[in-house]
Amino acid sequence: MMRYKLIIEYDGSNFCGLQKQKNNLNGKSSIESTLEQAIFDLSKKKVKIFAAGRTDAGVHALGQVVHFDLEQVIPAYKIVASLNFFLLNQNLKILSCELVNQDFHARFSAKMRHYCYIIINRRAPLAIDQNRAWHVPIDLNIEEMQKAAKFLIGKHDFSSFQDHQCQAKSAIRSINNISITKEATRVTIEISAKSFLHHMVRNIVGTLVKIGNNKIKASEMAKILSSKNRCSSGPNAPAYGLYFSKVEY
Amino acid sequence: MMRYKLIIEYDGSNFCGLQKQKNNLNGKSSIESTLEQAIFDLSKKKVKIFAAGRTDAGVHALGQVVHFDLEQVIPAYKIVASLNFFLLNQNLKILSCELVNQDFHARFSAKMRHYCYIIINRRAPLAIDQNRAWHVPIDLNIEEMQKAAKFLIGKHDFSSFQDHQCQAKSAIRSINNISITKEATRVTIEISAKSFLHHMVRNIVGTLVKIGNNKIKASEMAKILSSKNRCSSGPNAPAYGLYFSKVEY
Repeated sequence: MMRYKLIIEYDGSNFCGLQKQKNNLNGKSSIESTLEQAIFDLSKKKVKIFAAGRTDAGVHALGQVVHFDLEQVIPAYKIVASLNFFLLNQNLKILSCELVNQDFHARFSAKMRHYCYIIINRRAPLAIDQNRAWHVPIDLNIEEMQKAAKFLIGKHDFSSFQDHQCQAKSAIRSINNISITKEATRVTIEISAKSFLHHMVRNIVGTLVKIGNNKIKASEMAKILSSKNRCSSGPNAPAYGLYFSKVEY
Repeated sequence: MMRYKLIIEYDGSNFCGLQKQKNNLNGKSSIESTLEQAIFDLSKKKVKIFAAGRTDAGVHALGQVVHFDLEQVIPAYKIVASLNFFLLNQNLKILSCELVNQDFHARFSAKMRHYCYIIINRRAPLAIDQNRAWHVPIDLNIEEMQKAAKFLIGKHDFSSFQDHQCQAKSAIRSINNISITKEATRVTIEISAKSFLHHMVRNIVGTLVKIGNNKIKASEMAKILSSKNRCSSGPNAPAYGLYFSKVEY
């Protein structure tokens, strides 16, 4: 049995998310089913893919990682070319493929996950970046956001930023780094950790924007974190601003 | 009579171009008619807009400038908010509005036009930047492209880069600057001139990419330019990589 590791890119706008949905009323396909169908078109085998992170509907990926097993030995470059051929009309593309050992697991072997969140901070609504960035019309105080972000770095109980549907046994996570930069009207928030809770990045971004809009002080972030209560943090930032950018193994 | 100057942004993918098309078989609207409709919705007056540049179908704008006249005196901020309200479902947005004198003309008063062209230079096809960048799979030699671009700077007869349908009386234009930069897989070509011939930027980009792919030498650019023959230059680069970024007055 061969194990294949893929790095994939997708625009999440037209997908219902990474996973198949039981009650998918909007008729959109999942990344999982679209990719499994392409692998079936190539190999005539029904395979199950395993992903490094379960992105929600609308969330994009620049470097999501998945793995799957096949009995057939197919050279990596052929996998890339063939899958991209079958994905021609999809906003989902294979960036690279690698044959890996059976002990590699896209989800469980990951040592570091990198997300980035894009905000366009200007008065006017978005034409070019519609569905690819969060439009925040009120001028953001980047320095206050940077101050607030520092409280989150390190090992903490992130219950305040955890979705109520999150199935994780513990809310303790270690954030390695958060960087917030602004170039013209584009604000980029980069955040990395070994693993995240469900909605954790978007809840952090929502809270940072509340601070950037001067609705609460940067120092409140420490209190929000220690409250371990989702009600104390800011709103969940929209899915379409979020990019799953890279996984390290 | 009041004259209003607008700076507008649009994703050209869903438009047939700036101008109304006589035989528009694909059913897409023009920027012109969409904007004129929004101005009608606001003012109940049929107005004609004048644009700084006539962008083709698929070409985007980050800072296209248009003007129009209205008898009504409406504060600039109300124009922006109202037009954006009527443009809610369009990939076309008003960035700013300014009341200007009657001697201002979006097209004829322009002193400098800036375009940028985005190429994604990697093997894998595009998911995120589909319709917003040209996918060039062969590794580009940026230094050769930069060398070649230098031959174009200054006042020249640009017949070699002029579309056969171009109605300009003279093919003499002055390119102020061309910069070519690469960041990861993203190649950005910025080009500025007081005015351009029809398809001139895209024909220049197509030729630069031919040089970047080592199909012809950088020094050939001088010969192509002096030949004054469209057949000597490279292919017309796709519309969807082109952005009309800024106009100076």
